[in-house]
Amino acid sequence: MDIVSRLLALADRASAPAVAHAHCDLPCGVYDPAQARIEAESVKGCMEKFNGSDDGTFKTRAVMIKEQRAELVKHHLWVLWTDYFKPEHLEKYPQLHELFWKATKAAGDTKKTNDVAVAEDLLAQIAEIDRIFWETKK
Amino acid sequence: MDIVSRLLALADRASAPAVAHAHCDLPCGVYDPAQARIEAESVKGCMEKFNGSDDGTFKTRAVMIKEQRAELVKHHLWVLWTDYFKPEHLEKYPQLHELFWKATKAAGDTKKTNDVAVAEDLLAQIAEIDRIFWETKK
Amino acid sequence: MDIVSRLLALADRASAPAVAHAHCDLPCGVYDPAQARIEAESVKGCMEKFNGSDDGTFKTRAVMIKEQRAELVKHHLWVLWTDYFKPEHLEKYPQLHELFWKATKAAGDTKKTNDVAVAEDLLAQIAEIDRIFWETKK
Amino acid sequence: MDIVSRLLALADRASAPAVAHAHCDLPCGVYDPAQARIEAESVKGCMEKFNGSDDGTFKTRAVMIKEQRAELVKHHLWVLWTDYFKPEHLEKYPQLHELFWKATKAAGDTKKTNDVAVAEDLLAQIAEIDRIFWETKK
Amino acid sequence: MDIVSRLLALADRASAPAVAHAHCDLPCGVYDPAQARIEAESVKGCMEKFNGSDDGTFKTRAVMIKEQRAELVKHHLWVLWTDYFKPEHLEKYPQLHELFWKATKAAGDTKKTNDVAVAEDLLAQIAEIDRIFWETKK
Amino acid sequence: MDIVSRLLALADRASAPAVAHAHCDLPCGVYDPAQARIEAESVKGCMEKFNGSDDGTFKTRAVMIKEQRAELVKHHLWVLWTDYFKPEHLEKYPQLHELFWKATKAAGDTKKTNDVAVAEDLLAQIAEIDRIFWETKK
Repeated sequence: MDIVSRLLALADRASAPAVAHAHCDLPCGVYDPAQARIEAESVKGCMEKFNGSDDGTFKTRAVMIKEQRAELVKHHLWVLWTDYFKPEHLEKYPQLHELFWKATKAAGDTKKTNDVAVAEDLLAQIAEIDRIFWETKK
Repeated sequence: MDIVSRLLALADRASAPAVAHAHCDLPCGVYDPAQARIEAESVKGCMEKFNGSDDGTFKTRAVMIKEQRAELVKHHLWVLWTDYFKPEHLEKYPQLHELFWKATKAAGDTKKTNDVAVAEDLLAQIAEIDRIFWETKK
Repeated sequence: MDIVSRLLALADRASAPAVAHAHCDLPCGVYDPAQARIEAESVKGCMEKFNGSDDGTFKTRAVMIKEQRAELVKHHLWVLWTDYFKPEHLEKYPQLHELFWKATKAAGDTKKTNDVAVAEDLLAQIAEIDRIFWETKK
Repeated sequence: MDIVSRLLALADRASAPAVAHAHCDLPCGVYDPAQARIEAESVKGCMEKFNGSDDGTFKTRAVMIKEQRAELVKHHLWVLWTDYFKPEHLEKYPQLHELFWKATKAAGDTKKTNDVAVAEDLLAQIAEIDRIFWETKK
Repeated sequence: MDIVSRLLALADRASAPAVAHAHCDLPCGVYDPAQARIEAESVKGCMEKFNGSDDGTFKTRAVMIKEQRAELVKHHLWVLWTDYFKPEHLEKYPQLHELFWKATKAAGDTKKTNDVAVAEDLLAQIAEIDRIFWETKK
Repeated sequence: MDIVSRLLALADRASAPAVAHAHCDLPCGVYDPAQARIEAESVKGCMEKFNGSDDGTFKTRAVMIKEQRAELVKHHLWVLWTDYFKPEHLEKYPQLHELFWKATKAAGDTKKTNDVAVAEDLLAQIAEIDRIFWETKK
């Protein structure tokens, strides 16, 4: 990309975003933090099953399935952060970036442990995202 | 999503989660017809966007994304049917097989049309599955 | 979804399905229970490998791969059930719903065990589905 | 699927499976060129549907689904080439590398056209792979 | 990618790799913005092919493949943001959250257009992320 | 990857890129062996983490993630082999088929072991592919 087109691109970026994502211009416009929450509950469930079992193969499966579910939590949160939230939301909720960064890191942390408190912390962060999400929908 | 179903959904959220996922013998035991419903709403949204646009490329994208979302609806419904529902549920709700068969066929039908009524029919069938699901959770 | 659109949707359902899936209206129309059978053989193979090994890491991999293959069995069976079979097939083979429900549950069961008999039971159910499938093709 | 390939497929099924999967040292050891063939038949089916329709949206879906099926053909062929075939097979069938290279390129070509002859050429190459595969199983 | 940014990328690559992957506490610790860049170049390539063609089916495929590649760009960027960057990086580069938010939004924008400038804007943002990434690796 | 092949790879990369993506007839024409290399480095990283840990659950995760990464290596190599390389390349580099066959087999081998030397052997083979790739781009 040459300097000129880069500057043009930057100029575009500087002027365009204010109206770019208003009035739902996406294919479907359906978002719901419930998707992340359900997978996070599944993560917690996998931990409880892991902790309650003495069967090595079962525990292997719990770890494996938890890994997949935690990845889905991250994915659903990333989609909300990038696709749903707009600059005007960020003005009103300046904590959004930090909140999503920590929540997706928390989802990553649930892959590395079977401590249920880590999953509950993730669920609390998703609940906070959910609260803000529905406020913006009012 | 209209006001009524919105309020119902909120009511569900407010009252249900505390006991929602007890008594389950699978690795995580978390099921929720909301997963199928959210994707089906997305299918409906894609149809509305398709119908409201004159841009051929945009319409191509709407068709493409709808296809993926409808596939996710089928997947979430199949998982509920096979993994969540048990013989004792089927005794009480003998219509379950037919209900899921038609609902997954309806999800397939939404791939083939942009008639919003087909998506609404799918949503109605998911709502019926949702009603039975939560009855079995009581 | 409000009451009105729900009723409309139900009305649609009452009138439409009779002709909906006649005369193969899908994109390709290619189905073959061999897809489910091959994956189920793989599930059985993973169990045999698991049982014949003392290497913990190898056994972990066998469990992991079996989980994926069993999921593919479920997927291929679900597709057959929903997409291939039509109301007229169900009239002639009223056991189809129960057969697929049990077969997909059996596929799920193979995730939870390394008992080869469970995989063989799954293969027997797929063989029965295969038999009916090819009868309908005559 | 035409009568000839149908009969061949049936003949294969009737004679082969009993000893099909012996002598294999991988986690499951189950391979079957039928997986690639079924997806390639689906590719051909999508082309026929595309060519037989005047509905732009339907044609878009046919192109989209064909693309996915052709990718699956490539995947199944690649797995056979890398995972199933061993140096001793290559000594006996020195054409294997070229055969797989051309067959996977042919699968790629089916993405770019709706000329049924291209899909039939792909099916012929898969049939040749299938022939060699079952010879090595004897 | 033009000569200048290409040379910058090469300069980065020429100096960095020897120590690139030290000091990492995750399962593998390998990150590289090149993954996002390569997919973004593919997005740009799809746009150019789209713009240079009169064949409707080819254009449909270009849109479809671009959609998938743009999704991969988002995924690779999200992983970098959540998994690679740590609080100490954010202290030094407080613009990181905003940079990733806009870059992933830019990746989303490339799905909605075939204006090559939008892909170049995305590439410029990835180049900026790449620059910071390799600074943190020093 | 040893120092020598690493330096060779870097030297090759330093000279080639100016015309890298010309003369390509696919939808985007962007190929880069870096995709396979990055995943192979991740495979090596997973092995090192596995070998350096006494935590059974962590080791399970390392095996699982390595399996996925090794599969991605195979995929990226297969794509290069089938999609990028043309008959004229093969005339000039008649070893290509054997090189890719062995490299993808080597990627498969990394699933079955945590011996870092196996991953380094894979990286050396990818470096050789990378060297030829960039020569063909000159």
